Amino acid sequence: MKVKGFTAAAVQAGIRYQGRLDLGLIYSEVPAVTVGMFTTNTVQAAPVVLGKKRLLNGKAQAVLVNSGNANACTGEQGMEAALRTGGLAADALAIDEELVQVASTGVIGEQLNTDPFVRAVPELVSSLREDGFDDLAQAIMTTDTVPKTSSASVEINGVEVNLLGVAKGAGMIMPDMATMLCFVVTDAQIPFSVLNAIVSAGVEQSFNLITVDGDTSTNDTVLVMANGAAETPWLDEENQDGVKIFTEALHKIFKDLALQIVSDGEGTTKVVTIRVVGARSKDEAMSGAQTIANSALVKTAFFGEDANWGRIIAALGRSGCQFQPERVSIAFDHVVMVKNGLGCGKEAEKKASKVLQQKEFTVTVDLRDGSERAEVFTTDLTCDYVKINADYRS
Amino acid sequence: MKVKGFTAAAVQAGIRYQGRLDLGLIYSEVPAVTVGMFTTNTVQAAPVVLGKKRLLNGKAQAVLVNSGNANACTGEQGMEAALRTGGLAADALAIDEELVQVASTGVIGEQLNTDPFVRAVPELVSSLREDGFDDLAQAIMTTDTVPKTSSASVEINGVEVNLLGVAKGAGMIMPDMATMLCFVVTDAQIPFSVLNAIVSAGVEQSFNLITVDGDTSTNDTVLVMANGAAETPWLDEENQDGVKIFTEALHKIFKDLALQIVSDGEGTTKVVTIRVVGARSKDEAMSGAQTIANSALVKTAFFGEDANWGRIIAALGRSGCQFQPERVSIAFDHVVMVKNGLGCGKEAEKKASKVLQQKEFTVTVDLRDGSERAEVFTTDLTCDYVKINADYRS
Repeated sequence: MKVKGFTAAAVQAGIRYQGRLDLGLIYSEVPAVTVGMFTTNTVQAAPVVLGKKRLLNGKAQAVLVNSGNANACTGEQGMEAALRTGGLAADALAIDEELVQVASTGVIGEQLNTDPFVRAVPELVSSLREDGFDDLAQAIMTTDTVPKTSSASVEINGVEVNLLGVAKGAGMIMPDMATMLCFVVTDAQIPFSVLNAIVSAGVEQSFNLITVDGDTSTNDTVLVMANGAAETPWLDEENQDGVKIFTEALHKIFKDLALQIVSDGEGTTKVVTIRVVGARSKDEAMSGAQTIANSALVKTAFFGEDANWGRIIAALGRSGCQFQPERVSIAFDHVVMVKNGLGCGKEAEKKASKVLQQKEFTVTVDLRDGSERAEVFTTDLTCDYVKINADYRS
Repeated sequence: MKVKGFTAAAVQAGIRYQGRLDLGLIYSEVPAVTVGMFTTNTVQAAPVVLGKKRLLNGKAQAVLVNSGNANACTGEQGMEAALRTGGLAADALAIDEELVQVASTGVIGEQLNTDPFVRAVPELVSSLREDGFDDLAQAIMTTDTVPKTSSASVEINGVEVNLLGVAKGAGMIMPDMATMLCFVVTDAQIPFSVLNAIVSAGVEQSFNLITVDGDTSTNDTVLVMANGAAETPWLDEENQDGVKIFTEALHKIFKDLALQIVSDGEGTTKVVTIRVVGARSKDEAMSGAQTIANSALVKTAFFGEDANWGRIIAALGRSGCQFQPERVSIAFDHVVMVKNGLGCGKEAEKKASKVLQQKEFTVTVDLRDGSERAEVFTTDLTCDYVKINADYRS
């Protein structure tokens, strides 16, 4: 999969570990209309602070991204490191440094040593190629077990438009942009305001609906770059059909990458959709779904393949979502396990246990109290999650 | 330890498992002034609903408590079971059934079979004895590994006053009365209004400050019964000295039992105090402390004995607590690890790692932004926690 006018590359820079790809670069032949969405955490890493500032004019031409060190909680020295590494990329590419986005992921609170970048960045630039995005997807992995990419090719106004996304997870995943990076490049020709609206809506319906452990991060970033190289007619207010096709394609990539992140959640063995329906308000439905999705007791029951609906209703009961317990029904896929707040007995439980043995299933909680609904995607909580995170820095 | 006019007992009723104490009874020779505090969960078990109603007049003479089945999410049939088992105790004790409190802990969503109570309750009543509280503490255990009791004897106005408490944990522990039961009996002579104020304040400073996994339960109950058998002068507004001594003794028992519950949290290897100081408001300090205390990433780092302050500051950053990252300092016991938002280097980390090897330590986060503070008590998150909760029902 290639996207016109974009190249990418990754190298082994030895930022934290030796012998693995840990530094990547995305480059557009021309400055691209670029929309960024960043972590909502009060603590924001240097590259996030810098990236937000540089995107005020909605343009970028390159993204330099490293794993191994998050460059977060690193103060002025961290900001200098972000500026310096971005500057190295700008020099090697011979572009304005304001057009370089930097992104980092890894350990928080350690200064980023910029020495490895001096040698690695020119090597990166000379390695840029159209099919370099698979390497890039590898370079941004931390505890991810698989690289995550997603792409689409659509015809808009008779012209082929390409979209290609890469992302990383894998813990600290929670609505509002958790530890995750996602970069999407497209050759569509689209004004900033339209792209911005499409990206915001898409993030809301994808990355903001996934949760692994309720923790959010200091470095979360989604960047979408559109360089116009496909030479489509402009995707603007006067081209609603084109905008619709593009929106669908981009949102599908977001959703696909979001689900890849959940599936690869740390130590995960299951992906579970939590759906709360029949709520009085959208916010309450979302708060109920998120509380269930983040409950340690619910998630360990999923791991144990135990249709323990008592833990689900107890989590709902502390979520702030209003409901009458005696109206609630709960189903695992199509197996109704609770009706009017009461368990449906051993036979239903046996069938529900079968559902829980699957790698993917949906829990539907119907409050029968209104018409609003919400849905989030989560995982089980496993011994491996604990092991991975107890050992992560050592 | 004995408390005048109170007896207790426990038997093997076979409610869920054979061969273990699972049904207990507390009895006061005379109706006792009784204060109850119950779960804030929207979903409330039948015994909680019944207990709240019966305590409207502030009196109780007996508490019947079972483990193995929570009698929660059991509808009308569950309420009938609570009434029936309470009635069996009232009959065997020859007291008004309105004076019987029932309490249950165990699996949610299964009907409570009352048949075992028919044989067991009379046996319980005939086993009542002054030193029966240790057995009772055993009978209310679920995943607890040790029974929890705490007692005190104080002199008030020249008279000896005794207080004795029993409690259970061990998962689903979270501020606002998580899955826990606590019963305290005392022979003090005290009016309802005074006891009520003392209990409310005490719960706020003990059980509401502990958290194991952020989950709250459908059955949480604290009952304090004062039967006046010590024949103290009344502990009322006119006896401030007496009230003070009694308050201190009761609060100490609450705190002691709360810490026992945390120490015995499911799979726990460490008890950690999370203290947020220098906050602009008490609420924000508490929200910061609770978010840190419930973060899966922070708790797995504790388990790994990793002074991973980046996860602490990232959890704080999503807590809703306002702060300026560049002012924050973080200490593990007396080892300052972060100053002005920046790590203090390898030497500090080495010392902090030593602190984390202890079974108990305190994390102090100073926001340097105000004068409010909050403190909560939590545990690490271990593989054993996952195993216990993945297997709990099987």
